Amino acid sequence: MDSQEFREAAKASIDHIVDYYENIESHSVVSQVEPGYLRQVLPSSAPQDGESWDLIRRDIDTKIVPGLTHWQSPNFFAFFPCPATYPSILGELYSAAFTGACFNWICSPAVTELETIVLDWLAQLLGLPATYLSSGPTRGGGVMQGTASEAVLTAMVAARDKYLAETLPSPGSVDEEEYEELLMHQRSKLVALGSAACHSSTKKAAKILGVRYLAVPTSSKAGFAMTGPALQGVLQTCKAKGLKPFFLTAALGTTDTCAVDDMGAIGHVLEQWSADFPVAAVDAAAAAATAANGTANGTANGTNGDSNARNSDVNSAPIRKKGEVWVHVDAAYAGSALVTPEAQQAIPGGMRAFGAFYSFNMNMHKWLLTNFDASCLWVTDRRWLEAALSAELHVYRNAYSDGGLVTDYRNWQIPLGRRFRSLKAWFVLRNYGVKGLQAYIRGGVARCEAFAGWLREKEDVFEILTGPVYALTVFRMVGGGGSKDGKDGEELANERTKRLYEEVNASGRIWVTSTVLEGKFAIRFMTANRLTEESHVRAAYELILETAERIMKET
Amino acid sequence: MDSQEFREAAKASIDHIVDYYENIESHSVVSQVEPGYLRQVLPSSAPQDGESWDLIRRDIDTKIVPGLTHWQSPNFFAFFPCPATYPSILGELYSAAFTGACFNWICSPAVTELETIVLDWLAQLLGLPATYLSSGPTRGGGVMQGTASEAVLTAMVAARDKYLAETLPSPGSVDEEEYEELLMHQRSKLVALGSAACHSSTKKAAKILGVRYLAVPTSSKAGFAMTGPALQGVLQTCKAKGLKPFFLTAALGTTDTCAVDDMGAIGHVLEQWSADFPVAAVDAAAAAATAANGTANGTANGTNGDSNARNSDVNSAPIRKKGEVWVHVDAAYAGSALVTPEAQQAIPGGMRAFGAFYSFNMNMHKWLLTNFDASCLWVTDRRWLEAALSAELHVYRNAYSDGGLVTDYRNWQIPLGRRFRSLKAWFVLRNYGVKGLQAYIRGGVARCEAFAGWLREKEDVFEILTGPVYALTVFRMVGGGGSKDGKDGEELANERTKRLYEEVNASGRIWVTSTVLEGKFAIRFMTANRLTEESHVRAAYELILETAERIMKET
Repeated sequence: MDSQEFREAAKASIDHIVDYYENIESHSVVSQVEPGYLRQVLPSSAPQDGESWDLIRRDIDTKIVPGLTHWQSPNFFAFFPCPATYPSILGELYSAAFTGACFNWICSPAVTELETIVLDWLAQLLGLPATYLSSGPTRGGGVMQGTASEAVLTAMVAARDKYLAETLPSPGSVDEEEYEELLMHQRSKLVALGSAACHSSTKKAAKILGVRYLAVPTSSKAGFAMTGPALQGVLQTCKAKGLKPFFLTAALGTTDTCAVDDMGAIGHVLEQWSADFPVAAVDAAAAAATAANGTANGTANGTNGDSNARNSDVNSAPIRKKGEVWVHVDAAYAGSALVTPEAQQAIPGGMRAFGAFYSFNMNMHKWLLTNFDASCLWVTDRRWLEAALSAELHVYRNAYSDGGLVTDYRNWQIPLGRRFRSLKAWFVLRNYGVKGLQAYIRGGVARCEAFAGWLREKEDVFEILTGPVYALTVFRMVGGGGSKDGKDGEELANERTKRLYEEVNASGRIWVTSTVLEGKFAIRFMTANRLTEESHVRAAYELILETAERIMKET
Repeated sequence: MDSQEFREAAKASIDHIVDYYENIESHSVVSQVEPGYLRQVLPSSAPQDGESWDLIRRDIDTKIVPGLTHWQSPNFFAFFPCPATYPSILGELYSAAFTGACFNWICSPAVTELETIVLDWLAQLLGLPATYLSSGPTRGGGVMQGTASEAVLTAMVAARDKYLAETLPSPGSVDEEEYEELLMHQRSKLVALGSAACHSSTKKAAKILGVRYLAVPTSSKAGFAMTGPALQGVLQTCKAKGLKPFFLTAALGTTDTCAVDDMGAIGHVLEQWSADFPVAAVDAAAAAATAANGTANGTANGTNGDSNARNSDVNSAPIRKKGEVWVHVDAAYAGSALVTPEAQQAIPGGMRAFGAFYSFNMNMHKWLLTNFDASCLWVTDRRWLEAALSAELHVYRNAYSDGGLVTDYRNWQIPLGRRFRSLKAWFVLRNYGVKGLQAYIRGGVARCEAFAGWLREKEDVFEILTGPVYALTVFRMVGGGGSKDGKDGEELANERTKRLYEEVNASGRIWVTSTVLEGKFAIRFMTANRLTEESHVRAAYELILETAERIMKET
């Protein structure tokens, strides 16, 4: 394909894409194909001779589009959204054109520097404490990863190595065999924590690292959020069993219900937990540098004498205790809402609670108008990432890296190479502006409040289990006194809700997802998609109501 | 940005991108900016009001392009290439437009099915044994990941869990404490192997997993490839120390010199190593399923009685031994060359050697005309991935997944969500066709042979250390008898080559990278970029020669 063919093909593709968006409601939201559909219509091997773009292009409409589930449809109320926007698509276009592996600063300085700057912009916008800024008091900063799962694994690796470095003797101070024995024993006692409602990615990261995982129980009484007492209970269990908690995921918006853990209480409980731990150097450089040299050493010296000042100012460096738990905030979806002051004010414990934590993650690709993938991870001390994830080869060396003047993001992540992801984030932040982003977030929230209001008007049919919060309402059908054939109210509610869920999805007109809360089968209804307007929510509600009322009659 | 604005903006962007490619030689290959350049010209926070695309677009030229290192430049001879092509850019464009998280089949069946099909096409094209095909005899198949580093980590996690499942007693058969003790002990003895010349990603993966890493020594005598005797020696060391090798990276093209490990010898040595191990079930389903249930169980029953048939037919299921080493082939760059029969024939031990291995990785984004990221990983038994990486939440459940009819790629990788990466791979394979891909590979190889030929004509100035192989030549300047001021020949060769390296790069006209081989500072010269023609290589050679001759005079 030469330049002229590309000009024509690409411009036709632009029209094709706009047409796709303008007619997106003509498709069933969920693809209706059967498993294996594509193998039946594609050849079994690549062609020997090159094929024209016209031929390929036709296959997009006839073979690919029928197999798509339309995440951009205004009638997509499932999971969380994954919004593509026009400026974001332009970002991907330029990113593809400027392709490079970009693992080092010198491999394209703009890729590194724009990412640092845009993530500072975004951290400020979300109201994160200054400790998360690249220019803040603690060598913090942000990095764009692919997904929240990668972010939690990355944070957990750094947390593990921090814990081992801070709690084991220096490898040189004991003989090798003794050190190995201590390391092996310490590793075997490590435990990562998360709430029972937090995303499976924390458990998966623990499984990958081969460390234990314990869930802090949650219940409907506290809206499925992690509470201080529940965390306290799990810490006591760890103590009793000799387990060493080193990592905790605090959820800002759980997957099922968008519950928000009690950030203030988590900070308070962990401060008590670590009260007797030795205070680490405020500047963790020595420890991290030693750890980076392939040892696990916690001999950094010096303490900050004013221990009363611990975390007293949200924008100053927190006093760190050796061996304290690394708290990672998983705000993958709901974190985007923090661009509005009202969402910041609603955080239990306040935004200042994040000042004592170690990392924070939100996905611009979930609720901030940037297409997948754009997962933003901030840390309060990047040296722990670098200590855990640096791997050197001579071929990557250059004067800038050797001089320590620049950020080499390959040492902040699992992959080596990286895409120019910040370009799309930059386009979106600029093209929408803060006010545009706030308006979008508020629109999704308002639509969900309207939806919940309609459900409440029909309390003989529907029961809201959680929300509306962060544009998500979780509801079910009521079971009343049970059915004539002997099912009790709970059984009947589950049966009805499951039927409702299956039937509205089978219509192809909308897509919703389900969950089970304390045995209650429930429907999640999310209204945050970019193209969704109140009329779509109303139409979906009417489909749901009509179907529910029919089911009520039949059961 | 509305549809009309997008049409105009995107079409202007297409012209902009074509202009960029057509004038790419007008830029210095490596960006000339200083660290921190971008912060000086960007505001310190996101704008409150949205900005027009015209404003944003202007900043691309004035603020971003100067900070780019031009990986697409025909004068980029550094690292390995990262080729963007027009059909590949179209793939990214459509992928962005069709954005979804696509972690399950039902989240967009086309995303899953096209990936499976395209990776079968590619596996056939590369000449991989049928065990790597989704439709092959062993439940193999391919998955697209972001980078080779993710691929090796993913394979290593599966390998670790396989090893533990196959070598530990069933958790139920001993009491919990005893099992924990055994598990802890076994984990602490695990060791991953790679050659001293293999990419740092294997060591990094071992560091992430907290397992030991041992390098098999390499030397110039065997062209920096792993040999059978060297591997044998390391296995004996492991045995003597009680260490348990569970994973080995076999390099098909090392980073420094594109060395190819002796695949046949590796297979042979490991077959001897595992000769006394118990034979595992040919169908590993039971073991993998048990492991997936959160246990580490090696109680799969049944053996294939015909042990003489072990690995005898490259396209039949190999006989697996419990606890045998998982061999992962890292062919990140050079694997693309296997689209030519001559490259397949050059593999030491032949392509059939891969039949006994467990996973194979190559990056289409390195040498197969597909822009970053497009890392293809094939396994011979996907159930080990699923056992190690599955994490369930109710919200992801659906009838198709529950029915086991479909592939849910989220269980084959670390991230949950995924992009529609196969689209660009499909466009490239079709638009170029097999012949087009072969012609491209052969062009890069031929240009490098020409370059090496010119170096050989000047043996009073240059010495080739390795290659040309896979479009890479590694060379240095000669040191002769040393310098007048007392440096010996080796010192002088290093000093000269380092100067040559720095001076040709400082010109901005070309970019090369360096390495150190057995103390010899050397320049890597890679000729595989898409836009590189023989005239570019010749011009680069002349710059190198002219600079080298001046250095010879001055030293």
